[in-house]
Amino acid sequence: MKDLNNIAVVGVSGYTGFELAKILLRHPEARSLTFYVRDTQGAHCLTELFPQLRGWGQAPVRTLSVKAITESGAGMAFLATPHEVSVEIAPQLLDAGIRVVDLSGAFRFAQAETFERWYKLPTPHAARLGEAVYGLPEFYAAQIAQAKLVANPGCYATSVILAVRPLADAGWIAAGSTVVCDCKSGATGAGKELRRDLQFAELDENFKAYNLFSHRHTPEIIEHTGMPESQIIFSTHLLPLARGILSTIYVTLSEPQSPEAIEAIFRKTYAGHPMVRIWKAGTLPELQHVAHTNFADLGFALDSSGLRLVIVSCLDNLGKGAAGQAVQNFNHLLRVDEQTGLQ
Amino acid sequence: MKDLNNIAVVGVSGYTGFELAKILLRHPEARSLTFYVRDTQGAHCLTELFPQLRGWGQAPVRTLSVKAITESGAGMAFLATPHEVSVEIAPQLLDAGIRVVDLSGAFRFAQAETFERWYKLPTPHAARLGEAVYGLPEFYAAQIAQAKLVANPGCYATSVILAVRPLADAGWIAAGSTVVCDCKSGATGAGKELRRDLQFAELDENFKAYNLFSHRHTPEIIEHTGMPESQIIFSTHLLPLARGILSTIYVTLSEPQSPEAIEAIFRKTYAGHPMVRIWKAGTLPELQHVAHTNFADLGFALDSSGLRLVIVSCLDNLGKGAAGQAVQNFNHLLRVDEQTGLQ
Amino acid sequence: MKDLNNIAVVGVSGYTGFELAKILLRHPEARSLTFYVRDTQGAHCLTELFPQLRGWGQAPVRTLSVKAITESGAGMAFLATPHEVSVEIAPQLLDAGIRVVDLSGAFRFAQAETFERWYKLPTPHAARLGEAVYGLPEFYAAQIAQAKLVANPGCYATSVILAVRPLADAGWIAAGSTVVCDCKSGATGAGKELRRDLQFAELDENFKAYNLFSHRHTPEIIEHTGMPESQIIFSTHLLPLARGILSTIYVTLSEPQSPEAIEAIFRKTYAGHPMVRIWKAGTLPELQHVAHTNFADLGFALDSSGLRLVIVSCLDNLGKGAAGQAVQNFNHLLRVDEQTGLQ
Amino acid sequence: MKDLNNIAVVGVSGYTGFELAKILLRHPEARSLTFYVRDTQGAHCLTELFPQLRGWGQAPVRTLSVKAITESGAGMAFLATPHEVSVEIAPQLLDAGIRVVDLSGAFRFAQAETFERWYKLPTPHAARLGEAVYGLPEFYAAQIAQAKLVANPGCYATSVILAVRPLADAGWIAAGSTVVCDCKSGATGAGKELRRDLQFAELDENFKAYNLFSHRHTPEIIEHTGMPESQIIFSTHLLPLARGILSTIYVTLSEPQSPEAIEAIFRKTYAGHPMVRIWKAGTLPELQHVAHTNFADLGFALDSSGLRLVIVSCLDNLGKGAAGQAVQNFNHLLRVDEQTGLQ
Repeated sequence: MKDLNNIAVVGVSGYTGFELAKILLRHPEARSLTFYVRDTQGAHCLTELFPQLRGWGQAPVRTLSVKAITESGAGMAFLATPHEVSVEIAPQLLDAGIRVVDLSGAFRFAQAETFERWYKLPTPHAARLGEAVYGLPEFYAAQIAQAKLVANPGCYATSVILAVRPLADAGWIAAGSTVVCDCKSGATGAGKELRRDLQFAELDENFKAYNLFSHRHTPEIIEHTGMPESQIIFSTHLLPLARGILSTIYVTLSEPQSPEAIEAIFRKTYAGHPMVRIWKAGTLPELQHVAHTNFADLGFALDSSGLRLVIVSCLDNLGKGAAGQAVQNFNHLLRVDEQTGLQ
Repeated sequence: MKDLNNIAVVGVSGYTGFELAKILLRHPEARSLTFYVRDTQGAHCLTELFPQLRGWGQAPVRTLSVKAITESGAGMAFLATPHEVSVEIAPQLLDAGIRVVDLSGAFRFAQAETFERWYKLPTPHAARLGEAVYGLPEFYAAQIAQAKLVANPGCYATSVILAVRPLADAGWIAAGSTVVCDCKSGATGAGKELRRDLQFAELDENFKAYNLFSHRHTPEIIEHTGMPESQIIFSTHLLPLARGILSTIYVTLSEPQSPEAIEAIFRKTYAGHPMVRIWKAGTLPELQHVAHTNFADLGFALDSSGLRLVIVSCLDNLGKGAAGQAVQNFNHLLRVDEQTGLQ
Repeated sequence: MKDLNNIAVVGVSGYTGFELAKILLRHPEARSLTFYVRDTQGAHCLTELFPQLRGWGQAPVRTLSVKAITESGAGMAFLATPHEVSVEIAPQLLDAGIRVVDLSGAFRFAQAETFERWYKLPTPHAARLGEAVYGLPEFYAAQIAQAKLVANPGCYATSVILAVRPLADAGWIAAGSTVVCDCKSGATGAGKELRRDLQFAELDENFKAYNLFSHRHTPEIIEHTGMPESQIIFSTHLLPLARGILSTIYVTLSEPQSPEAIEAIFRKTYAGHPMVRIWKAGTLPELQHVAHTNFADLGFALDSSGLRLVIVSCLDNLGKGAAGQAVQNFNHLLRVDEQTGLQ
Repeated sequence: MKDLNNIAVVGVSGYTGFELAKILLRHPEARSLTFYVRDTQGAHCLTELFPQLRGWGQAPVRTLSVKAITESGAGMAFLATPHEVSVEIAPQLLDAGIRVVDLSGAFRFAQAETFERWYKLPTPHAARLGEAVYGLPEFYAAQIAQAKLVANPGCYATSVILAVRPLADAGWIAAGSTVVCDCKSGATGAGKELRRDLQFAELDENFKAYNLFSHRHTPEIIEHTGMPESQIIFSTHLLPLARGILSTIYVTLSEPQSPEAIEAIFRKTYAGHPMVRIWKAGTLPELQHVAHTNFADLGFALDSSGLRLVIVSCLDNLGKGAAGQAVQNFNHLLRVDEQTGLQ
């Protein structure tokens, strides 16, 4: 078996890749770490590309090629690449016996049609979809530990699934009712492409909804909460801040519950999962509580009828929503404490 | 009849009062304008209290007393005061024949019990509640023009009622379904009291929900949309920006509708009401579009079933949500164009 | 003479052009107003390009051509265009007898070499430089009223010149001493080009210096304060906010002065110039005081020796720093109150 | 000798104390850690006071008393307290043989008069001033390692001294010239007291200068750069962001220098001091580069004459400017790598 502590990271120019670099440079199990990019701009070392990383550690930068990765002896690869790139590279790395954590949406669905419908792209990699494990360790830790290919979840999807699934699994959501997921994300969640609406003067003092009824994280939410598509509304908004997702989730319960019962079901689900923190009834998490961490925080309010529940779910879109969760998955592959390098 | 162009403004220390001052100082019908405050701090003129208003116009500042207001010959008073103060002052001004626009919540409900339940206070002014007209001119213009006392609506309530009422009036909301109103406000909406959670370092890069199931604007929404309390969930969040409310509102329709039909019902409702702007199907308003204006903007998205509707409603909490709307009401009292002084 | 109330505005896609549109749409003297752009995107009317301007007024949009402008009967043109475009268009408009306010840097210098040195471009328009009047009405009102071509000043330059010139004119700056101008601007001052460093996630929670010793506003400052280049250091920084420039300016005085004397020289210089506001000794202006206005505010602190003076100069880079000042110049051309349409 | 790994932290309610808690909870040498506060609010454990710290580690909270600290066996105390409190407590702890790092200004000056002049307070602790070592390890590491009492520097002072001292020590600053230090800080630098000007709506989209010629960090700068008071101007501004100080420093050199020579003198001074990072000539650090780190970054621009130098000095006011530096000092007391727990 290849050496999982010899790591290739593909892509570091986006916000997710950069965050991943910062975490891995200080990860005690990352004994060898090499970054692969399309264009090295003449740099041989990560701190030449990002002078602000001086003092965080050294790592070589190389021009991306599957051959270079396989010849490096890497046993582990992180793909912080657009899904079009992941679709192309991941199968080759897998064929070379390298285990892959892919941070794009390319391998998040079991069905090729789902990818085609939501990503509007053909699925040349359909044959590999079955190999992928959805990388939400609070629910799939055992499968992740065995996986060759881990599909790291979407940031919004992580935020919603962690909140809704305990109730869905318990059968507490009223049949036929709609679960409304009103989600808000900071700007780094929208990526680093130059876009007019992501310019400072456009987003500063602004707030807007976007991609209503069409966001690509929808099918992940459906698949991993088990809710039918007709019972979920998922909407997304852009916040004038850099990091964090807060989802406000409205659930109609099938029977009246007490706040204690709600808190208990969350605590039971996430017992032994330290990266999910439950706020006690009557208190709510805020974005600042999770920014720059790998925590996902859950709090809630229940109305006096005991039937109408509002859940507040927070995480850092670059932490538990992307790079942090990718490293959490890596820790499961390594079979070390899942918090390693994430504190 | 008293001179409505001789105006007393009570309270200018809060964000709403200050905004009101800026609008009225440049309002062509505000021929005489006097500000009354608890403590003049030795100032005789508004620009002594607020040097940044030099060049906006001059207005005297006096120590607040009902006697001073009545003796000044004022025919019109704006109360930008806490509801406890409005409860006390408004009846006296009314008794003196002065017409009042009250920006607090003191007179927004027909029933004294509503006030007692949501504001947790006795209602010494119960006898005057019947005199108040709810100051949402898009629905109550005729009554406002005749009113002695106008209860200026809450900022969140304005945002929600403008979005929901056209559908409720048309009977298009599915019976028994829940309308979820997920509302987000900038910091000036929370007032100017010194509060830890409103300190810059606490709200910057932060976002949080608050007052779930207990916000005081709830009964206004219920009363003026006609929706039963059990069918409305209204939640509030604090945005890291100064001005603006964006409400995302989830409605289940009783029968499938087309985007054109939805747009048409909004256009029909607000024909002749220039302060409400309808965004055409497929486009959505953003907070920046309404900040520093008196506009309320409505846009929407409809899912492919035609049954699930998401409305986005935006306004400036200090504009159409407070001071601007108060002046719009004043314009109706004056029977001048309702946009006077608001452009 | 042509009709100055028939106005052509060239360029509306940048922040300055958009601000100019908002001001002119409500300017009482703008009786006819037409916008010219490179690409109308099929729009015939400004609100088709900018739906958020509905309710501000209507104005046609046309494809830019000098012929179209001259045939329209326009007597007045604003150029909110890059300097390369202004260089080309302004002479043609002038030849057609149209008066021009140019908001770019193309005509701000009397000497062609200055343009070549700081803008690194040839000066095909050298012959027209002599026709231009520098559009700082607090110092050149008489010339502006007569001008065919007004070169609207740079935003930083306005901020610095207003602060330094009264002292330079009085001969109060110590011979051979260096005047340090440490200037900070909001993001709209950097323009609307898509730039990595202007993306929200890059500027949010960030602050940086840029263009040290090379900023193009330097020669304006030198020319209009009369200070030798060797005695001025002008540096620029980018603030994480949308609008406003605050310049902190350090002056060594030739002889000890009292705070009263400093205040008096500013008050004397700007008597009769309501757009410049002097803060009394011991108080300082802040950016919020001038944002969304056409005011420039000056305050100062003097050390106990009376020799070391720190001036704080604030303005809105889109107001007094660009579009507002352009309209102030227009008012001088029209010979109406210079505040017309700017309140 | 007492156990330096048994640590008492006094004060955790301010931003500095909270940052210190986060660092120490994960510091490998902090084997025993107890927090002392005026009012425990019934809490026994830090996460009861700050639920957002769950998962960072556990530490007891106790009511502050010198007796409790001395009886706990602590060998080391951090005082994240106002200077009035530090003045009172530090001598008692020192008398009990506990080594102290004080984060307030109480012990930063050798002369009692300096404290009296700038802090406007008597100096009951004058006798202890001689015991204190100024905790800037890049210059005083040997003394710090021996110190009983370390006076942790002010955040602005650290930023300025690191930039100016290498040039002052080299004698490169022109005799009689003024060094202008134009410094800008984020909101956490102003503390956590409830203050009107620190409310979100007041600081958002705002920027202002404050405390001109009167800031308390001035005497530290004078003492540790060796510059005479008459040759330093130090001004401070408040940025609309949470964390970070950027100082722009203007120096007139005594003789022309090359960029290479300037870079070399910085590199030589800070060789072996990894927390200070030098940016190569032609590049400048930005606040984002140092936020949430213990780095201080230095960059510069030199004009073509080689005589006028602008230095840009950045750090995180809670990191290298306060809590991080306190821990760096602690590491020197412990004689472990000074970066321990700071990465």
